Amino acid sequence: MSEYSEIRVDVDSGVATITLHRPDRLNAFTATMARELVAAFDATDADDAIRVVILTGAGRGFCAGADLGRGERSFDADDESRAAERGDFGTVGGAPRDGGGVVSLRMASSLKPVIVAVNGPAVGIGATMTLPADIRIAAASARFGFVFARRGLVPEAASSWFLPRVVGISQAMEWVATGRVFDAEEARSGGLVSRVVPDDELIGTARGLAEEIARNTSAVSVTLSRRLLWSMLGASSPWEAHRLDSAAIRDLGRGADAREGVTSFLEKRPPRFPGRVDEHLGIVPGWPERPEEMT
Amino acid sequence: MSEYSEIRVDVDSGVATITLHRPDRLNAFTATMARELVAAFDATDADDAIRVVILTGAGRGFCAGADLGRGERSFDADDESRAAERGDFGTVGGAPRDGGGVVSLRMASSLKPVIVAVNGPAVGIGATMTLPADIRIAAASARFGFVFARRGLVPEAASSWFLPRVVGISQAMEWVATGRVFDAEEARSGGLVSRVVPDDELIGTARGLAEEIARNTSAVSVTLSRRLLWSMLGASSPWEAHRLDSAAIRDLGRGADAREGVTSFLEKRPPRFPGRVDEHLGIVPGWPERPEEMT
Amino acid sequence: MSEYSEIRVDVDSGVATITLHRPDRLNAFTATMARELVAAFDATDADDAIRVVILTGAGRGFCAGADLGRGERSFDADDESRAAERGDFGTVGGAPRDGGGVVSLRMASSLKPVIVAVNGPAVGIGATMTLPADIRIAAASARFGFVFARRGLVPEAASSWFLPRVVGISQAMEWVATGRVFDAEEARSGGLVSRVVPDDELIGTARGLAEEIARNTSAVSVTLSRRLLWSMLGASSPWEAHRLDSAAIRDLGRGADAREGVTSFLEKRPPRFPGRVDEHLGIVPGWPERPEEMT
Repeated sequence: MSEYSEIRVDVDSGVATITLHRPDRLNAFTATMARELVAAFDATDADDAIRVVILTGAGRGFCAGADLGRGERSFDADDESRAAERGDFGTVGGAPRDGGGVVSLRMASSLKPVIVAVNGPAVGIGATMTLPADIRIAAASARFGFVFARRGLVPEAASSWFLPRVVGISQAMEWVATGRVFDAEEARSGGLVSRVVPDDELIGTARGLAEEIARNTSAVSVTLSRRLLWSMLGASSPWEAHRLDSAAIRDLGRGADAREGVTSFLEKRPPRFPGRVDEHLGIVPGWPERPEEMT
Repeated sequence: MSEYSEIRVDVDSGVATITLHRPDRLNAFTATMARELVAAFDATDADDAIRVVILTGAGRGFCAGADLGRGERSFDADDESRAAERGDFGTVGGAPRDGGGVVSLRMASSLKPVIVAVNGPAVGIGATMTLPADIRIAAASARFGFVFARRGLVPEAASSWFLPRVVGISQAMEWVATGRVFDAEEARSGGLVSRVVPDDELIGTARGLAEEIARNTSAVSVTLSRRLLWSMLGASSPWEAHRLDSAAIRDLGRGADAREGVTSFLEKRPPRFPGRVDEHLGIVPGWPERPEEMT
Repeated sequence: MSEYSEIRVDVDSGVATITLHRPDRLNAFTATMARELVAAFDATDADDAIRVVILTGAGRGFCAGADLGRGERSFDADDESRAAERGDFGTVGGAPRDGGGVVSLRMASSLKPVIVAVNGPAVGIGATMTLPADIRIAAASARFGFVFARRGLVPEAASSWFLPRVVGISQAMEWVATGRVFDAEEARSGGLVSRVVPDDELIGTARGLAEEIARNTSAVSVTLSRRLLWSMLGASSPWEAHRLDSAAIRDLGRGADAREGVTSFLEKRPPRFPGRVDEHLGIVPGWPERPEEMT
């Protein structure tokens, strides 16, 4: 995975760590970074040895937001340099696809659970790109800001869908309407991160969570569970879940992982799950990865 | 109500207490228990004298999860003994209906509010079956675990729909992806239970809440409110609620319960509501109780 | 704005304060008050100089609920005086529109963010009308009650849709099923208000939040963000947000507010956003304001 220029990807003991890597720019977001993040999630999905993905930032920042290197035209899709750079994300509804959304929707459809370890400022797209992750934790020195209204923009990266589901509509509206930058403790009390740890314990805590998942659980179970919970956020009734559950329980209940899960539990030993994710994916449909696949 | 073998049902002062009753097995869940729970909710719905249902467990546990008495084939729907035992739940989408979902969806459509008093370990279906209840409280010694990924399964009982709505998607995913067993305090801080009380105060606290409801409120109001709030979780806009509200206010506003509610309030005396639930149910549609009724 | 009889509206430094004003009746809700509130939100929407709306109550109460001056017939739509008074709200689904819903749905479609400062008892419609606001704060002496079940009614003002989204379904059901009146601290710990302040600091705190928004943000951004976040609460997938984001970013990214937002940020000076809301409203559809506009 050495083809990346603005991120780094390391794999260790079943855990892939994706590091935003433009430390001299506080890892400001670019179209190149977006493309590389999509490629990285494609790679972690394709590798059965990877069970969990950690996303963090290099240096003092997590991600300071969109790179403002083009000054006042930084968000102008008609700007030639920008159009060239991001053209290959395609369009949706006739508009160029928002680059933050390209990343966040790819993360949302990750087959592996995603843990974000926010090591410093996470502002704009640096904040919104974390929302489709399953778990967010923060270093004490992290800062957050949904600053779009202070830049004349709106929250992107599909955050209008994700943020109220993560923190509730009232907290979401307060952060978005003020555009305020706030600290890790406000992020925790507001439900944006589940815990705040000293800076030097951040990666260790994230790895601890990742290994808790990797060591104890079936990859098939975790992947299908991730799809079930996120997709049922959009379902109008629990009966839709009951249909999917019933199909999944029939499929998995007679499978090798369920036998190993019960046997290892009864024998009080660590499990060794043999199941392969790709053989069971059809049970629970995921979100589409490309707009043309949408109904 | 003495026909039950794996649960007990007691009625006192308008409050029905359903007790999971296989104490020598930590009340492990079986198809028989599922059938009896459905029958118990049918009975509490049919009895106008019952205002509130409390669900708890006998002995040291609440419910330790599915009974693993058949070992590694415990979840295999093709296993003959299992197929015979659960066949009469029917199918949904071509698969045998998940037994946990049969119970949780029946609880979801209960006409009476449900309070779960978690007296000890609530693991697997023991945890997921509590989610369609309206209020959950825990004894200090209670334990919880959405352990499905550790058994090679996925969360069932329509919990992929219920759990993120009860505790938020991030907390839900952390508990489901790790499969961790956690204590009552973590359940409270994560929003799974509203309060934790000393073990010997659990039932008293649950009864206190039940009597607060039974003594002060109209049965018609509480039943219709329960339907409104839960069903509107799946509605795409508040205008759907406005339609139902307007119909309900017209119906109830000229009814005997509204007259008694206002009069008793103005006279500063306890209310005595005469309304009958079955005369008003048509105003607010409930969820279907059987899959063939689904649209 | 002197045509109001049961509310007051004051505008100062871009902030409109709407005050429920029947202090001798604890600001009990009437059809006249409903009509005036709708007119007030029409006026604040139409005035570009107004950036934020604060809603509070005059005197000791916020709003004690529906006026019960007609005694036991207070909620009877067939009562002649009531029918005459509220007839002009029209009907929805064949029933007279619930007056609380007329107000709450108008507030939900406000172009300006709404901050509710709860200065005293907020009971019945006094509690439910606050739910479509973006931010709720309370004075220490505030009280709340979703008391409908104690009056033989159901929660109205589309609160079955709003309340579970604001505080979660479990907390919502507990407050609605018991009909209990509770204090400001319970409102805060349950997520109904974001903070509780001493009584004499309430309006100052609300104004501080309003000015934080007015001073730092683009009106176009805040209006479109408000529409995005609230409407996406009803969307089944984040792809719907991605479509809207992409259109909005294209439109706003090349606009005057984005240029000013980036430039003022890079120059470390306060922004002066020139954008006009009405030129950008078409990007993000709002909720319908009238039932006949519903799909």
